[in-house]
Amino acid sequence: MIETNLDEQTIRRIVREEIEAALKKDPANKKAAIIASKGTLDWAYPPLILSTAAAASGMDVAVFFTFYGLNVIHKDFENKLKVSPVANPGMPMPVPIPEVINALPGMQGMATMMMKSMFKKKNVAGIGELHQVARESGVRMIACQMTMDVFGYTKDDFIEGIEIGGAASFLSIARRGHLTLFV
Amino acid sequence: MIETNLDEQTIRRIVREEIEAALKKDPANKKAAIIASKGTLDWAYPPLILSTAAAASGMDVAVFFTFYGLNVIHKDFENKLKVSPVANPGMPMPVPIPEVINALPGMQGMATMMMKSMFKKKNVAGIGELHQVARESGVRMIACQMTMDVFGYTKDDFIEGIEIGGAASFLSIARRGHLTLFV
Amino acid sequence: MIETNLDEQTIRRIVREEIEAALKKDPANKKAAIIASKGTLDWAYPPLILSTAAAASGMDVAVFFTFYGLNVIHKDFENKLKVSPVANPGMPMPVPIPEVINALPGMQGMATMMMKSMFKKKNVAGIGELHQVARESGVRMIACQMTMDVFGYTKDDFIEGIEIGGAASFLSIARRGHLTLFV
Repeated sequence: MIETNLDEQTIRRIVREEIEAALKKDPANKKAAIIASKGTLDWAYPPLILSTAAAASGMDVAVFFTFYGLNVIHKDFENKLKVSPVANPGMPMPVPIPEVINALPGMQGMATMMMKSMFKKKNVAGIGELHQVARESGVRMIACQMTMDVFGYTKDDFIEGIEIGGAASFLSIARRGHLTLFV
Repeated sequence: MIETNLDEQTIRRIVREEIEAALKKDPANKKAAIIASKGTLDWAYPPLILSTAAAASGMDVAVFFTFYGLNVIHKDFENKLKVSPVANPGMPMPVPIPEVINALPGMQGMATMMMKSMFKKKNVAGIGELHQVARESGVRMIACQMTMDVFGYTKDDFIEGIEIGGAASFLSIARRGHLTLFV
Repeated sequence: MIETNLDEQTIRRIVREEIEAALKKDPANKKAAIIASKGTLDWAYPPLILSTAAAASGMDVAVFFTFYGLNVIHKDFENKLKVSPVANPGMPMPVPIPEVINALPGMQGMATMMMKSMFKKKNVAGIGELHQVARESGVRMIACQMTMDVFGYTKDDFIEGIEIGGAASFLSIARRGHLTLFV
């Protein structure tokens, strides 16, 4: 008889130790699911930066591109992703500009150029580079079937490496992970 | 003596098996908590579509309507939920329109109409239908007490089936679920 | 021999009881990680209100201020946090105003003043007070290193009690908690 000390109390202690250890490596710690719903240059960065950073730290990551977020993975992302200074009083500008001037033609192009140059000067990767990092680090990039239909996009409109799926397929990933974000 | 083989090692193996099985059906996998904070037509869709899709896949879902998101459950949602083309360079438009024209009276109505028609043509349910699906599938719709007070709303301003609660009541749901999104 | 009844079946029952109890107090239930990415007055409230409410209910909370969200913790937040009525058809206004008028100089100041007064009248804490509550309740406020560099900010630009960190340090917190929000 080798287990003479293993009474219920001892077993409960063992169980608690194992559970504590298991929760520390809870599989949900390793899973991230991010929705990318915005179609402007500034809001293209967060889902790409967060997803590639999560993948770099060993997480399994899926990004679901939906609504205006389909712009982020469009082949023509360079032209589609712009940044608007209008109605964005949070955007730091060298000089304060009244909104009515911000609304003039040309200001959007200027703001987009400014942001690209600010990011480049600080060695932040561009959108195209982030696409590549995402692909290479195994980030799953899923285009939302429903909004593709609404906006009239087909798979050919998107960069390489994109899957197509619905809200249900996103949810089946997201429900198993701790990190879930709607950008 | 029936348990002669159950030494500590065996018990640890049993425990690990049970934990692995338990984490696969972790109750947090079944719970979703979504904040709906935006008051425009385009941003009314994601919380309603995601919450009803989550409920359809068997999850317990709560949506917390706060700030401008109170528009989404307002009785007069048809008039309150509009979409603005200004400062949304991400919105796909048949022709590119300078922002200054986008700001003219009438453009907002036009953009709203366009979006409604695009969604209808693709058989996406309208906001009113999504309200009904949410109610029928047991999605809890909670209006934020604090922002109701700030904006001067009472429970009568909202569609049927709405609960009223504070941030604390939202958090007590959200902290137990994997899927938590701020829309 | 004290453990004569502890056969495998009994042990599995004990294990399941312990796991059920453990998952109810899953450490992930206690952890919240919020990204604050917006730089306007209206969107400064949700991360501060949610993080302080979460801390009040006993959770460990970290807020990661990035992109325009750096405004929220800037020493000059009173001037940096404005609210724009343009392109926000969701904002309740006493009278409907065409967008072209919303874009005129002065409207932004008016909308900002209106919102501050609405919140004050309803006894909602101001941003400065919320900073203090956050500090006192142990909310970790982390400024994003990368966007600080891009926008040219140093630690001295921010209010007291701010840490500096990267996306990786945010992710290492977020992946262990149920409540993860991108505001």
